[in-house]
Amino acid sequence: MSGARFSKIYTSDLRVPAREVLLSNGERIRLYDTSGPYTDPAATTDVTRGLPARREEWILARGDVTGYDGRPVQPVDDGRPSAAARDEHAWRGAARRPLRAAGAPVTQLAYARRGEVTREMEFVAVREGVTPEFVRDEVVAGRAIIPANVNHPESEPMIIGRNFLVKINANIGNSAVTSSVEEEVEKMTWATRWGADTIMDLSTGRDIHTTREWIIRNSPVPVGTVPLYQALEKVGGVAADLSWEVYRDTLIEQCEQGVDYMTVHAGVRLAYVPLTARRKTGIVSRGGSIMAAWCLAHHRESFLYEHFADMCEIFAAYDVAFSLGDGLRPGSIADANDEAQFAELRTLGELTAIAREHAVQTMVEGPGHVPMHKIKENVDLQRDLCDDAPFYTLGPLVTDIAPGYDHITSGIGAAMIGWYGTAMLCYVTPKEHLGLPDRDDVKTGVITYKIAAHAADLAKGHHLAQAWDDALSDARFEFRWEDQFDLSLDPDTARSFHDETLPAAPAKTAHFCSMCGPKFCSMKISHDVRRYADEHGLSDSEALTAGMSEMSAQFRDQGGTVYLPLADT
Amino acid sequence: MSGARFSKIYTSDLRVPAREVLLSNGERIRLYDTSGPYTDPAATTDVTRGLPARREEWILARGDVTGYDGRPVQPVDDGRPSAAARDEHAWRGAARRPLRAAGAPVTQLAYARRGEVTREMEFVAVREGVTPEFVRDEVVAGRAIIPANVNHPESEPMIIGRNFLVKINANIGNSAVTSSVEEEVEKMTWATRWGADTIMDLSTGRDIHTTREWIIRNSPVPVGTVPLYQALEKVGGVAADLSWEVYRDTLIEQCEQGVDYMTVHAGVRLAYVPLTARRKTGIVSRGGSIMAAWCLAHHRESFLYEHFADMCEIFAAYDVAFSLGDGLRPGSIADANDEAQFAELRTLGELTAIAREHAVQTMVEGPGHVPMHKIKENVDLQRDLCDDAPFYTLGPLVTDIAPGYDHITSGIGAAMIGWYGTAMLCYVTPKEHLGLPDRDDVKTGVITYKIAAHAADLAKGHHLAQAWDDALSDARFEFRWEDQFDLSLDPDTARSFHDETLPAAPAKTAHFCSMCGPKFCSMKISHDVRRYADEHGLSDSEALTAGMSEMSAQFRDQGGTVYLPLADT
Repeated sequence: MSGARFSKIYTSDLRVPAREVLLSNGERIRLYDTSGPYTDPAATTDVTRGLPARREEWILARGDVTGYDGRPVQPVDDGRPSAAARDEHAWRGAARRPLRAAGAPVTQLAYARRGEVTREMEFVAVREGVTPEFVRDEVVAGRAIIPANVNHPESEPMIIGRNFLVKINANIGNSAVTSSVEEEVEKMTWATRWGADTIMDLSTGRDIHTTREWIIRNSPVPVGTVPLYQALEKVGGVAADLSWEVYRDTLIEQCEQGVDYMTVHAGVRLAYVPLTARRKTGIVSRGGSIMAAWCLAHHRESFLYEHFADMCEIFAAYDVAFSLGDGLRPGSIADANDEAQFAELRTLGELTAIAREHAVQTMVEGPGHVPMHKIKENVDLQRDLCDDAPFYTLGPLVTDIAPGYDHITSGIGAAMIGWYGTAMLCYVTPKEHLGLPDRDDVKTGVITYKIAAHAADLAKGHHLAQAWDDALSDARFEFRWEDQFDLSLDPDTARSFHDETLPAAPAKTAHFCSMCGPKFCSMKISHDVRRYADEHGLSDSEALTAGMSEMSAQFRDQGGTVYLPLADT
Repeated sequence: MSGARFSKIYTSDLRVPAREVLLSNGERIRLYDTSGPYTDPAATTDVTRGLPARREEWILARGDVTGYDGRPVQPVDDGRPSAAARDEHAWRGAARRPLRAAGAPVTQLAYARRGEVTREMEFVAVREGVTPEFVRDEVVAGRAIIPANVNHPESEPMIIGRNFLVKINANIGNSAVTSSVEEEVEKMTWATRWGADTIMDLSTGRDIHTTREWIIRNSPVPVGTVPLYQALEKVGGVAADLSWEVYRDTLIEQCEQGVDYMTVHAGVRLAYVPLTARRKTGIVSRGGSIMAAWCLAHHRESFLYEHFADMCEIFAAYDVAFSLGDGLRPGSIADANDEAQFAELRTLGELTAIAREHAVQTMVEGPGHVPMHKIKENVDLQRDLCDDAPFYTLGPLVTDIAPGYDHITSGIGAAMIGWYGTAMLCYVTPKEHLGLPDRDDVKTGVITYKIAAHAADLAKGHHLAQAWDDALSDARFEFRWEDQFDLSLDPDTARSFHDETLPAAPAKTAHFCSMCGPKFCSMKISHDVRRYADEHGLSDSEALTAGMSEMSAQFRDQGGTVYLPLADT
């Protein structure tokens, strides 16, 4: 019965995907769908070939990009001594010549400023239930970004901004210690199946270039990276040997591959490094610590800070968005909201302004580890300093005493910071601080963050969010168990938990559950109250009270018990 | 190595328990301990005999109670047709004659009002790190309660109030559908082992009396119940047949057994029932729906409301605390903060005042299902209407779309409402809305709620809470892996997650972890920054910046890399 109750549907001529749930009472509800063609029974997918380039036609139709040969891929891109060593995993699917701007910036921000509504804007307008003009205006204001590299035409456009549904990101990526290309691609499809709006590939081991190629070619959602990780690999892991040249080479490589947004730790300035010396947990951002090490080694201002305008020119040519990294974010409750953190945030505000001068879409990253009473200050200060650029936060964890449960410690902070105005939440899995997430951890992290994002949407009064809760509440009240499962963020788990206690098929249509058993069901009593009200045409409480004497007699006439069998509703 | 790193210690002549963690750097940290004698290797426990009556001497020394024969236990107390049918599970351990007040109330509130500091108050003062006089004054003000029935001498005193550590309750109990006496006792010891501050026995099936006897005689924490559930069983499940007489009989029965606090749904008044008719999910509290049904059937005011003063007299004679039930709490996001809910809350405020006139300790229950932006209003209104009586809330869930994960949806709301001032949080397990929790669910619920309570303590600025986080952060920064595990809320899970990725024993002393691998460790870089600062006696950022040029040279002299092996610190 359950399989046929979902369908993948597409609306508008843009083929905007949605997950439609057919309820047993005949109602249908459409849910936001990030899973791409993989959940479409009519689509054929093959991860060795990649997804269809659905945006290619839109991009080319604008007539403002040109194809070119691109930077040759080199063995060092994968941390390999020679080309031969790469063969095992080499990407053999779709290989397009890279595109870049023929002249002026090709960013969604540049188009929006010219008053244009792009196909990408139309697409997200349908997804979000708003007008295309509203989308455009939010992009013009810098309050929202649509990460959409011209070299990632496989992606389904989405928008990140405080006036849209709160989004979540799932980090994947191998490390020097563990995991393979295949595992990472599977984690990507798995994470988007459960609701990840973007993916960040944070690989740090070998095969960085190749792993990323597999992920981007198969990803229906925007892909983010931290280019510094690969740049460091190219110089053998010695931070002092980093340079603008090797970093720039890495940016071009990743722009050509189709990375949609990149974390750039340009706010870690030389003068801020000493501010971390007395912290309880120093610098916990990998990118931040690498740049701090470079600044210390050279006693020079960060090359990322000094070359920020150069980066803007590159990003504008591909429509890569900045995710301005918070390299000095706190790594413990004790270090939250300190001088180092907020000094960097002020610099991120300056950089946001520079990026916007270059028409580059920009969001700003935030903490980390923050106790509940210090969360709101982060959002308020970021809005103020960064002129409402979308905020993108990691958690924050609201306590450090629960390793193994940091999806929960951070889910609490994520829900709150989302309510306060954060546009995208970077997930944390149960393995945070302990190890790399496996497939189950990825799912747990994604579901936890969907809860946080949705709770934030509800608290912000989003009508689509409330409708979803209402549909599930109705199903619960009316004992439509299958509907309740199907409307859940994780129908499989909801169904299996129910079946553990009441496995028999009739229990799924029963008008009670195992918590109270048939005799104690408060929902049944509520139905009696409502039925009396309906039968007597009583619509307000005064009238109801007035009619209660009569109702009381009827109630007793029907057996004097509240445990009447309920008619199906 | 791990086993010997914890010890159960007792402080003061009152033998106040604590869990002491011995860290590898020689430091010790003491954590609040709810687990009772079960975790004391020097203690012998036997659940068939019950725990030692540690408070008996204190109670008798006050000279204000008398023993009496008590109400005879009857087969109907267990829902059995005859005494013979009970034999299988019958309690054969300690059986004391019940105690009750010889004259004046024997409540902690009555003593506090007379200026007395009881042994119970001294005990909780040690546990909480405050003075006994502060405890007494909070009890006098009604801002805190110490649930301590004179017939539950096995309990270790604890306090519930906004100016103390936030507490958590774990619900256990069988139902008509599932689970046994043995399982429930095991859930109790398991829940308190992980940190439950109180237990509620919500059994609704057979053997209610006997199950409760086993639980109370073995419980080191206060035990709460909802007497209405048992009263309803006594009248064959027919709500209309309930009466003050059968309810009163049940109260006496449970007072004599040693229940420390009882949920009483006396705020569900006749006039409020119609307010629920247009709700999305009606009445979801079992107790609330039973009373609504009774009011409907008789068209009379609730007998609980009318006999509230009579109950006060009974509770005052045993020191049973009220937990004024929120029978009209919302059961969905849509119904939060509505007229029905707040009408009842106003009545609970009136009842609080009456209970205090009788020197009965009182707390007030709260929702339920509330979106984030409506949580604070609940706390503010409750404080105002109930004159700062401790608030005791169930979650609240901040969204309804994630059955199977309602420990998380509610943990978010619980952390927030705890920060806003709720004194005790009633846990929710992953099985909420789907089935009865098993042992694993109980643990997950308790750990999630310990996270919420602790996050609230941190946000309220509790010094003991911050010290715990700091100790774990220090351990993390210094790569003391075993200390990090041992300081966790759940050391077993933290250790096993770490070992999944890096199982070798040396990895537990490694100065990196599997997330980044040895080359990308930001913590190591932070140590370099700190070491330079220490070596140069640089204690403020200006001096540090001034000294950076010299530092830079030294940094490069040492190899120009940040990946130096770190000396153990």
